[in-house]
Amino acid sequence: MKTLISGGTVVNSTGTATADVLIDGEKIVALVSPGSDVWGSDLERSVDTVIDATGKYVIPGGIDAHTHMQLPFGGTHASDTFETGTIAAAWGGTTSIIDFAVQRTGERVEDGLAHWHELAAGNCAVDYGFHQIIGGVDELSLKAMETLVDEGITSYKLFMAYPGVFYSDDAQILRAMQKAADLGLLTMMHAENGPAIDVLAEQLHQQGRTDPYFHGIARAWQMEEEATHRAIMLADLTGAPLYVVHVSAKQAVEQLAWARDRGKNVFGETCPQYLYLSLEEQLAATSDQWGAFEGAKWVCSTPLRSKEEGHLDAMWQALRTNDLQMVSTDHCPFCMKDQKELGAGDFRAIPNGIGSIEHRMDLMYQGVVTGKITLERWVELTSTTPARMFGLHGQKGVLQPGADGDVVVYDPNGHTSIGFGEGKTHHMNMDHSAWEGFEIDGKVDTVLSRGCVLIRDDEYLGSKTHGRFLKRGLSQYLV
Amino acid sequence: MKTLISGGTVVNSTGTATADVLIDGEKIVALVSPGSDVWGSDLERSVDTVIDATGKYVIPGGIDAHTHMQLPFGGTHASDTFETGTIAAAWGGTTSIIDFAVQRTGERVEDGLAHWHELAAGNCAVDYGFHQIIGGVDELSLKAMETLVDEGITSYKLFMAYPGVFYSDDAQILRAMQKAADLGLLTMMHAENGPAIDVLAEQLHQQGRTDPYFHGIARAWQMEEEATHRAIMLADLTGAPLYVVHVSAKQAVEQLAWARDRGKNVFGETCPQYLYLSLEEQLAATSDQWGAFEGAKWVCSTPLRSKEEGHLDAMWQALRTNDLQMVSTDHCPFCMKDQKELGAGDFRAIPNGIGSIEHRMDLMYQGVVTGKITLERWVELTSTTPARMFGLHGQKGVLQPGADGDVVVYDPNGHTSIGFGEGKTHHMNMDHSAWEGFEIDGKVDTVLSRGCVLIRDDEYLGSKTHGRFLKRGLSQYLV
Amino acid sequence: MKTLISGGTVVNSTGTATADVLIDGEKIVALVSPGSDVWGSDLERSVDTVIDATGKYVIPGGIDAHTHMQLPFGGTHASDTFETGTIAAAWGGTTSIIDFAVQRTGERVEDGLAHWHELAAGNCAVDYGFHQIIGGVDELSLKAMETLVDEGITSYKLFMAYPGVFYSDDAQILRAMQKAADLGLLTMMHAENGPAIDVLAEQLHQQGRTDPYFHGIARAWQMEEEATHRAIMLADLTGAPLYVVHVSAKQAVEQLAWARDRGKNVFGETCPQYLYLSLEEQLAATSDQWGAFEGAKWVCSTPLRSKEEGHLDAMWQALRTNDLQMVSTDHCPFCMKDQKELGAGDFRAIPNGIGSIEHRMDLMYQGVVTGKITLERWVELTSTTPARMFGLHGQKGVLQPGADGDVVVYDPNGHTSIGFGEGKTHHMNMDHSAWEGFEIDGKVDTVLSRGCVLIRDDEYLGSKTHGRFLKRGLSQYLV
Amino acid sequence: MKTLISGGTVVNSTGTATADVLIDGEKIVALVSPGSDVWGSDLERSVDTVIDATGKYVIPGGIDAHTHMQLPFGGTHASDTFETGTIAAAWGGTTSIIDFAVQRTGERVEDGLAHWHELAAGNCAVDYGFHQIIGGVDELSLKAMETLVDEGITSYKLFMAYPGVFYSDDAQILRAMQKAADLGLLTMMHAENGPAIDVLAEQLHQQGRTDPYFHGIARAWQMEEEATHRAIMLADLTGAPLYVVHVSAKQAVEQLAWARDRGKNVFGETCPQYLYLSLEEQLAATSDQWGAFEGAKWVCSTPLRSKEEGHLDAMWQALRTNDLQMVSTDHCPFCMKDQKELGAGDFRAIPNGIGSIEHRMDLMYQGVVTGKITLERWVELTSTTPARMFGLHGQKGVLQPGADGDVVVYDPNGHTSIGFGEGKTHHMNMDHSAWEGFEIDGKVDTVLSRGCVLIRDDEYLGSKTHGRFLKRGLSQYLV
Repeated sequence: MKTLISGGTVVNSTGTATADVLIDGEKIVALVSPGSDVWGSDLERSVDTVIDATGKYVIPGGIDAHTHMQLPFGGTHASDTFETGTIAAAWGGTTSIIDFAVQRTGERVEDGLAHWHELAAGNCAVDYGFHQIIGGVDELSLKAMETLVDEGITSYKLFMAYPGVFYSDDAQILRAMQKAADLGLLTMMHAENGPAIDVLAEQLHQQGRTDPYFHGIARAWQMEEEATHRAIMLADLTGAPLYVVHVSAKQAVEQLAWARDRGKNVFGETCPQYLYLSLEEQLAATSDQWGAFEGAKWVCSTPLRSKEEGHLDAMWQALRTNDLQMVSTDHCPFCMKDQKELGAGDFRAIPNGIGSIEHRMDLMYQGVVTGKITLERWVELTSTTPARMFGLHGQKGVLQPGADGDVVVYDPNGHTSIGFGEGKTHHMNMDHSAWEGFEIDGKVDTVLSRGCVLIRDDEYLGSKTHGRFLKRGLSQYLV
Repeated sequence: MKTLISGGTVVNSTGTATADVLIDGEKIVALVSPGSDVWGSDLERSVDTVIDATGKYVIPGGIDAHTHMQLPFGGTHASDTFETGTIAAAWGGTTSIIDFAVQRTGERVEDGLAHWHELAAGNCAVDYGFHQIIGGVDELSLKAMETLVDEGITSYKLFMAYPGVFYSDDAQILRAMQKAADLGLLTMMHAENGPAIDVLAEQLHQQGRTDPYFHGIARAWQMEEEATHRAIMLADLTGAPLYVVHVSAKQAVEQLAWARDRGKNVFGETCPQYLYLSLEEQLAATSDQWGAFEGAKWVCSTPLRSKEEGHLDAMWQALRTNDLQMVSTDHCPFCMKDQKELGAGDFRAIPNGIGSIEHRMDLMYQGVVTGKITLERWVELTSTTPARMFGLHGQKGVLQPGADGDVVVYDPNGHTSIGFGEGKTHHMNMDHSAWEGFEIDGKVDTVLSRGCVLIRDDEYLGSKTHGRFLKRGLSQYLV
Repeated sequence: MKTLISGGTVVNSTGTATADVLIDGEKIVALVSPGSDVWGSDLERSVDTVIDATGKYVIPGGIDAHTHMQLPFGGTHASDTFETGTIAAAWGGTTSIIDFAVQRTGERVEDGLAHWHELAAGNCAVDYGFHQIIGGVDELSLKAMETLVDEGITSYKLFMAYPGVFYSDDAQILRAMQKAADLGLLTMMHAENGPAIDVLAEQLHQQGRTDPYFHGIARAWQMEEEATHRAIMLADLTGAPLYVVHVSAKQAVEQLAWARDRGKNVFGETCPQYLYLSLEEQLAATSDQWGAFEGAKWVCSTPLRSKEEGHLDAMWQALRTNDLQMVSTDHCPFCMKDQKELGAGDFRAIPNGIGSIEHRMDLMYQGVVTGKITLERWVELTSTTPARMFGLHGQKGVLQPGADGDVVVYDPNGHTSIGFGEGKTHHMNMDHSAWEGFEIDGKVDTVLSRGCVLIRDDEYLGSKTHGRFLKRGLSQYLV
Repeated sequence: MKTLISGGTVVNSTGTATADVLIDGEKIVALVSPGSDVWGSDLERSVDTVIDATGKYVIPGGIDAHTHMQLPFGGTHASDTFETGTIAAAWGGTTSIIDFAVQRTGERVEDGLAHWHELAAGNCAVDYGFHQIIGGVDELSLKAMETLVDEGITSYKLFMAYPGVFYSDDAQILRAMQKAADLGLLTMMHAENGPAIDVLAEQLHQQGRTDPYFHGIARAWQMEEEATHRAIMLADLTGAPLYVVHVSAKQAVEQLAWARDRGKNVFGETCPQYLYLSLEEQLAATSDQWGAFEGAKWVCSTPLRSKEEGHLDAMWQALRTNDLQMVSTDHCPFCMKDQKELGAGDFRAIPNGIGSIEHRMDLMYQGVVTGKITLERWVELTSTTPARMFGLHGQKGVLQPGADGDVVVYDPNGHTSIGFGEGKTHHMNMDHSAWEGFEIDGKVDTVLSRGCVLIRDDEYLGSKTHGRFLKRGLSQYLV
């Protein structure tokens, strides 16, 4: 089974080229200058499908390295199953996800991982890997970390927030990082000072400040900056490389830059919400349907930050200066009804999360349109770097012979209206959109995963048995 | 005329792939997975030459963005002609150079450029481009800058050192940068405070401190740091992007990092001498042949720095953190006899320069062997970034369909002994080597430029009429 | 002749005390707790004058370390003579000034100094010292620096601005700093990149932007920041301590803080205009009398800065954090008529300077009233530190036995309306006030210089023959 | 009762003066120039005692703002009682101490304070105040903080180290700081990441690394730097001013400087041990008496740091740059026998503390002798700033009318040999000296506290009922 994507502009992170891409089976086998006689006369006979990409960009499929399908949180579960979430991913040009297997205090890491394998296997439209959440660092879970690399789980995540749920104290973090440094595991960190934030949240609640907006007030940027610095120093002490997830505060980026200037292996991602959505808008939001509770749509952690204070601009700048290296979604959808509503009258009970997996490639492409990033940086932030960071390089994130046939044809002349209401729909299992009203000057045209066409002509052609587990290698940045 | 480089490990800056590279005429037309049946049955007939790269790296040809063939300096000329220098480049796996056309006070830019075209045309073994030195900023030269982009000269260089020769004062720099910001020209800066350094040099001379070592003492790191900061601020004021050449001081890098953390378009290169050679060694050097004057071999500006003070380590670190983006040679060779000797008894009269064009790819590869950089970063520092920085992306610096057939097959199992004396030889027109005794655990095996084999089986097969002028586009980093 | 200042609150920089101050002849001879029986029964007989300071502050007389009486500038002279200027100083509670003797290219330092002695001697209401301006660094002036310390001139000033007038290039600065480091002289620096600024000013003029406001646009903060950094690095190279005059840019302060954090002997002053007056107000200013040229009142260098960009707040903060150590006036008055008017139609021709000598103590006291600084810091910034910085400690700047009887009784219940127009007057020789409309919640009540009452009951009782030359010692900060 | 200290050089932090100091009762009532006729003819009759200070320094009595008499720690108590400790203080020229009242989890703050009052009252040779340790932040202790200011306890201390003993987590710190910000209390912080350090200590112990030296290895500088940054950010969030105790790491000082450059009210002290004693010496120490356990003498927290890594030099520099503002002892003595010995075979069980109260003034004076600080800075670091920082200004820390008659006559021509063994003795209740062998080029000559002579002619003339509780005001730095 051969597919030829012809006439498009191939965009790799290092540059563009006019080239035909030939996929044979699951792999890209050739990039060829159009019109050359390389193929000989056998070409027509040998290719099964030809996709005409003339006038379009041909890019490596997106990799969303931070998703939470079916995550148990706040007494409910993230509303996307692996099936609904990965179908939405495919619609949005994302052909790989790295989700989080969960271990909590008192549970075995092996069990958590097995459970997540069970949830995902046979239910994914695109390929999927796992990071391992270690929600309870103890002798048993430290021991269990030793087999993760062999399992293809080369990164794990700790939380400095959510005491009593996922939280690790500094002693636990130190032990885990020591172990990770030995094993080559990349430490991913939710860097917010949870104990301090919980005090602020409780005080706001006591003062009757219960609206969703106060979620962002409680989670002050100082407590993100502080935790980021603390994680950096614990990493420095142990020699563990560090990857800070969902960075949103300008000052947190300054800490990352400070560490990187000193040659430390410290990395960071941001998410579309921290580039586009602001605390000011969350404060202003009110609707007929939800009243002042509308802001609950944008309750996520780290929270939306103030545009006036420059946080949003700082995120874009950091993507340019490479003080942040990639963009994930932290996709963690909850419906307003029955889910977000749990926090009506108490922002602390609102499940934390925004659903964006379907829109990441589009939202970041809009940054190309508006001149914030280059075309190549778009591919780098959304696909190439995630692959290198999480041990999928060579296989994913690049269009070259030997790489998987994960390809997106993106149409710069297309248009995408994002949203759930007013005749629009998305494919995520949510009853609203955090991105209602966003307009994109481009469109995902065709999506292939390992040579199979998933999306074409606005139709989903995939299957939930197609997606395969990605056994990942070590991060390329640490070799 | 088709050439197939088969079975090698293709190394691009984003990763490696096992792929055959097919060149048709001057261009790469295909990258293909070995063993795939893409070619059909016509392959054998259609290819003229097959180069077996099994077990070897296949990389884009090196780009040395800082060379000075035949540069008039200190009453003599750099000893390599375009012919000898580019043949040496080819031997060393460098298939493009960007040299400097020179304008000095009272001269017309057009004349300087024309003269350099004359020197190079028909005399180059590899492709060549020009930056324009503006040694005398005045109304006429500012006016002349306006046509440079059309001429394919998209970068120009100013000097904060060498008063009376190439020096521009801050008023001149400001005017030139304003013009450059308008035109999209990249400003390259020799960042040393020349007037201050000349005072120190004169004082040392008066004290009888005349040995070559004192060249490095006079050119104190403080004056490199200072000039770097000054250039950054003038660039900030004018909106001009800035590229600092031959960075050698740890503190200068700190200034670059400081600017980049603030989102400024500020870039920097270092050179092999600042990574490997130290002021301490220069002090210690003495030989039968030249006595204490041996240190003259290593007289260059910026000077060698102290290893003890951490400058060398800082350069390697900055290459990893990307606070320095690329490695050029500042190739500016002078023979000891009749040239460096001009400064016997007065270090100020020693022509400034080291010849390294033949060894850059090897010396940087040794950084891969010793674990200082990755294989991909090696390609990025020596080829991919120079291409992007100086407007040759797509054409050079990457192995992809449509790119020039500039390819180096590099053998990790080979060995290279660098030097001029003791039975060894190099191809640069120098009577000594600044790199005597360096041993490299790798070897340039085969070199192609635009599809023509220049080096194979330790033989130079090229021609001085092969190299072509490179009309460059704008820097990709500024789009 | 004995004077007793009784019942007041003595304010030294380290704290307050309720104490009587006894002056005998020119010196303070005792500080005594009121009501103690120290004096024995002879007191009443022994004291000639009693000044009742009950309910008032008793502070050391102000020291204005930066004044320019009669300075030749831009084809005219600063409008205050030593006589008018020092009388104004006395009215404002300033009992010592340090003015600048001027040497220019081609002149002898000795002659300049002698000339300034001639201008001042017998014409000063208060004590005066000199810094030496070296406007032309050459062999002769470098040689002349050697005798300055013996002459009681322990500080000298260089200009990085005003090419062709006072400007020194970096080679000259380096030589002068080397000499100063040897001699113990403190280097004062006007830190603005003059050559670059002159380009900008000329361009604005060519564009028809000739109003006074554009003076501030031309003198961009980047060029103050840059020159400050450059001065720091030249000081670092030579080992010379550095004192930056009239700091106004936030970023220049950041450079000072950066140097001081590294343990460098780097100091800085700001002036009342950079604390209270803004570029925005200068832009907005227009009057019946002068139209848009009214802004000329506030043309000084460094220029007024943008309040919106935070420069003014940064100056106050730096006074608190001690990144700036003192407040001088840079008193350099020019009348609007015949003087400032020289620049009608061309801001470049407006004589640079503001007259503030009479208001410094009041304006800074208002900072106490508004809570920006403490009472002790007020004394420290305006009197104690100037004495320590410029080698007058022990003699001036403190109320203690042995110190000169320079004392100001300041009334916190008084009120001062500053200005020249509308019934108000000042004592500076100016036809306007840069400070029109400023209201101070306090008042200079009584002023003594070396035991002589200069101001009392709103009357000037001094004499122009009273003031004496201050032969200064080395800076206390450099011991 | 009047005492006249005549003919000495009075040293205040702002400068020196030749002056007689007259004390009447408990207060200084006059400073008078020697030889003036202020006194009238009654002088001789009126003065009871004359102390001739000719050729000597007359300074305000030392204030040691960080002592731990009788502190319960590690199953034992600090070996100095208030009596022995304050007598030793007097011998060393320290006339005020601020000790720490202790509250621990489950205890009432009022009870802890009452207990400490009980311990100290009637047992102190010099005046004493208290900071309040809040070892258990909860509703009750937060409430109790409200009365502290009225009690004259205007500062309190939290610990980020010692989990299970004094440790507060970040939620507790946040609550306490909020309260402190409201009340005007100064928050003192032991800034070390205790939970992380305890992991390291346990691991070292498990590896058989049990010698005292490993105490310093476990308490890595990264964990001091980290905690310092965290405290700064919690202070920033709450608006609470912060005072970091016993700073020893270069990088911790960098964090303080960073905060202060941003205008934050952040202060720090260091101690003599961090200026003079090093980790390298601790490693090398071994003796006949104690073998390798000798290093236990120097077990304190924060620990001794590496001289090679520059920590000691950094402390001296920070005292000059004022990034550290004062020097306390953290006096917490333990005997080797029965106390330090508890940790033989397990460094974790060695009681933490060094006894220095008797030597602080001498050790810091030696910094004057060696040119590290000035005479005035000596007084400022050891007396004036402690008084201002902790609300004793006006009363203590300065020689001026109205201040307490706490005066030390210090003889620059005397000599002090510090130590316990070999014929030397000290007055602290310790069986060894951490300072054995230190030689001081100066000597405490005479010591007065509130007008009473405590030390004269090498004799202790004081009484344990003399010392009085110091009801302190708010910090002067926060007004």
